[in-house]
Amino acid sequence: MAAKEIKGITPRSKDYSQWYLDVVAQADLAENSAVRGCMVIKPYGYAIWERMQAEMDRRFKETGHVNAYFPLFIPKSYFSREAEHVAGFAKECAIVTHYRLKNDPDGKGVIVDPDAKLEEELIVRPTSETIIWSTYKNWIQSWRDLPILCNQWANVVRWEMRTRLFLRTAEFLWQEGHTAHATREEAIEEAKRMLGVYADFAEKVLALPVIQGVKSETERFGGALDTYTIEAMMQDGKALQSGTSHFLGQNFAKAFDVQFLNKEGEREYVWATSWGTSTRLLGGMIMAHSDDNGLILPPSVSPIDVAIVPIYKTGEQLEQIRKHVEPLMDEIRKRGFTVKFDDNDTKKPGWKFAEYEVKGVPVRLAIGARDLEAGTIEVARRDTLTKETISFSTAGAHIEALLDDIQKNIYNKALRYREEHTVTADSYDEFKAALDGGNFVLAHWDGSAETEALIKEETRATIRCVPFEGDKTPGKCIRTGKPSPCRVLFARAY
Amino acid sequence: MAAKEIKGITPRSKDYSQWYLDVVAQADLAENSAVRGCMVIKPYGYAIWERMQAEMDRRFKETGHVNAYFPLFIPKSYFSREAEHVAGFAKECAIVTHYRLKNDPDGKGVIVDPDAKLEEELIVRPTSETIIWSTYKNWIQSWRDLPILCNQWANVVRWEMRTRLFLRTAEFLWQEGHTAHATREEAIEEAKRMLGVYADFAEKVLALPVIQGVKSETERFGGALDTYTIEAMMQDGKALQSGTSHFLGQNFAKAFDVQFLNKEGEREYVWATSWGTSTRLLGGMIMAHSDDNGLILPPSVSPIDVAIVPIYKTGEQLEQIRKHVEPLMDEIRKRGFTVKFDDNDTKKPGWKFAEYEVKGVPVRLAIGARDLEAGTIEVARRDTLTKETISFSTAGAHIEALLDDIQKNIYNKALRYREEHTVTADSYDEFKAALDGGNFVLAHWDGSAETEALIKEETRATIRCVPFEGDKTPGKCIRTGKPSPCRVLFARAY
Repeated sequence: MAAKEIKGITPRSKDYSQWYLDVVAQADLAENSAVRGCMVIKPYGYAIWERMQAEMDRRFKETGHVNAYFPLFIPKSYFSREAEHVAGFAKECAIVTHYRLKNDPDGKGVIVDPDAKLEEELIVRPTSETIIWSTYKNWIQSWRDLPILCNQWANVVRWEMRTRLFLRTAEFLWQEGHTAHATREEAIEEAKRMLGVYADFAEKVLALPVIQGVKSETERFGGALDTYTIEAMMQDGKALQSGTSHFLGQNFAKAFDVQFLNKEGEREYVWATSWGTSTRLLGGMIMAHSDDNGLILPPSVSPIDVAIVPIYKTGEQLEQIRKHVEPLMDEIRKRGFTVKFDDNDTKKPGWKFAEYEVKGVPVRLAIGARDLEAGTIEVARRDTLTKETISFSTAGAHIEALLDDIQKNIYNKALRYREEHTVTADSYDEFKAALDGGNFVLAHWDGSAETEALIKEETRATIRCVPFEGDKTPGKCIRTGKPSPCRVLFARAY
Repeated sequence: MAAKEIKGITPRSKDYSQWYLDVVAQADLAENSAVRGCMVIKPYGYAIWERMQAEMDRRFKETGHVNAYFPLFIPKSYFSREAEHVAGFAKECAIVTHYRLKNDPDGKGVIVDPDAKLEEELIVRPTSETIIWSTYKNWIQSWRDLPILCNQWANVVRWEMRTRLFLRTAEFLWQEGHTAHATREEAIEEAKRMLGVYADFAEKVLALPVIQGVKSETERFGGALDTYTIEAMMQDGKALQSGTSHFLGQNFAKAFDVQFLNKEGEREYVWATSWGTSTRLLGGMIMAHSDDNGLILPPSVSPIDVAIVPIYKTGEQLEQIRKHVEPLMDEIRKRGFTVKFDDNDTKKPGWKFAEYEVKGVPVRLAIGARDLEAGTIEVARRDTLTKETISFSTAGAHIEALLDDIQKNIYNKALRYREEHTVTADSYDEFKAALDGGNFVLAHWDGSAETEALIKEETRATIRCVPFEGDKTPGKCIRTGKPSPCRVLFARAY
């Protein structure tokens, strides 16, 4: 949108954190705002989020969920009702105490009106379990009212001290599912189903391979009996928690007194789940796939799949090219992809090539007078940075196959990277060396929170999850030597 | 979702306000939350909003706009920068003063941590001009960066004292467009274009006839040079402002020092527009179309266009009916409509008929064993509450024509009602009588804010707009007798 020069991007090898910020800035995805920790999601970044939303929303609806909307504010007292929840969650948050400004009697500005103090402070939602379960109380009387399968697309606020665009921001956009069930089994099944939906979305749409598993007690969501997670590997070997799904048991039903009459006519507390993914996942995708030349986007979420750059000297030539490529553009659209013909006259082709590269457009075409004569077109793919000249007459089919290949290649590359950087360790020295080498480490752990804390303190690694699939052979804890039922996944994490 | 009895709805003639609230409650659209003035939008209400959003969003994109996302919070000082804006807007709003809770040393609960006070208070956005123009400052250097055509889908908060579901709530959902232009003419054209988009959406999609016009100075948006509006008539003759589009001149550019280099190399302030519609429009649609039996929805936004109720005694009969109607359901879907087969075994057909009626489903079909034999199906249309039995074999085409007719009929009915309740008045007595009769009144006004205020005080009527189209003959002000260039639209309003 704004005119800008394509500037250098710090190489990953030099400074991975700075590289990420450079990619986000150069691809025009987001920027920091005047408000501490809150980001502006720029049009190009938001267009990616919209495609992610559409894909997720479709999957939620296909699994029987409906959307609803609950209040932004939560009365402070609600956070005292579920003890684990407040301990884990509601401490660092934005608090509304007043509801009116007035003119500053001493100046031109405005001040908070001291007479407009709220009787009870309101918390800007960091997550919505409490306000939603206070609402569900009125919606649920009998087993006939169950299950309730609601999702909400919303903004939430957590007063993070150290923020980074998309990955950790004070305000972020997310979806939060909140479901209510008649039985424990059904709730667990739902929580696992939604983790499966997240994993499928991450792998098929974002081309992001993930490890599914269950969190240790320490890493659980505040108020959950179990937290299921998908964990992705970034290119520095660190883990990014990319989505979580919680089996909440009857904790919130008890906190807000939500009971139902079961088929036997007895009163029971309702069983709950919640599950969420956020704009953080967008950051994870950027970090996992991009390279030193900028953003790499899987075609499934790229706002532009194919960009066409005409090479021309005169307006007449431009119109010739436009007319020539129009049938190809129609064909590309019919095949289900988005295509843009870049006839911006204030920019040179070289600038446009660089721009589409840094913005991660999967396929870039170039066509000039010589191509028109020869019946050819130049095709550049972003993921491998390779170019070829192909026959114009079969370009449509070629491009469709190429986009399909790009989607697969991005996934396979990320999967290969993770496989090459996942090791098993059987001693603490091996463990620490593996972490320093930028790896996921599968290792034995004695199951105690104390040992987990000790390992974290000594190595900065946390237990990402107990993977659903993997080595279930018992062994000995790498730190204490005590018995361990199976290997768990350790990593340093964002 | 929750099991409920279809209860009586207060008739419009008895208590119009209560009727509206009853319709919203019985159709399961929304409810008040535990937080003063904030509503819960229930799944059925939210599904309507989603259809509205999709239709609007498509129209915004077709007119060249892109979506983005800006922070929820605005530094307090930003509101002092544009004097008219703060006067009109930022007074009644939610103010964040602290960022941390801590355990209450004297009890089990949590308290606001007095040590976690913000240096500068943050306002929860009541509208986003200030935060967006502080951002645009960094996006705009030259004429090449213009225009910027951004829209945002977001929640906003205005601390309203008297709230009513959808129509006026402390938190509401909306979209706000914010555009930046190189010339005054281009900005005015944009503001008018978007009002046209709103009018087209209201009339074609919501079946809501609207009057387009320009606001008087008194009724302008704070900070605007001109506010354009669409005004709809409710069934009590009151007006509902349904969408506004503002020509902001250079006010916000000056407040946030946003200049650009024009083609001549000179620095100029940028020209601005903003435009918004909200969940209020959903309330307006409900209030304009519904009847004493509940909600009436135009097919264009109804989450369910066609509901099929099987009449059966045995499970075998149900399966027979299901198999029989499946091809019809496929056909209805192919024709572009949504259809639901209601096989809920815990509810009787009569309950279902009442439920679809109160929820405003445009077409309800019923089919039983006798219909299977006779090759017929019963078709009930919600808008006219009429029923007929038609041939099953041609039902698909019949239903498509019917849905088309329902959409038109709802619009025409509302238009007829407005036309029958719009009068011209040439004396103050006529004027007051017309208002008391529940009418829009076209009358002369001398153009002064004093007269406008006087009329409002004496009659509770406001100038809704100076209509773009209408009688432009000069005359004499109904209140003061002073000269008036044209008739303006007066009404009592929500």
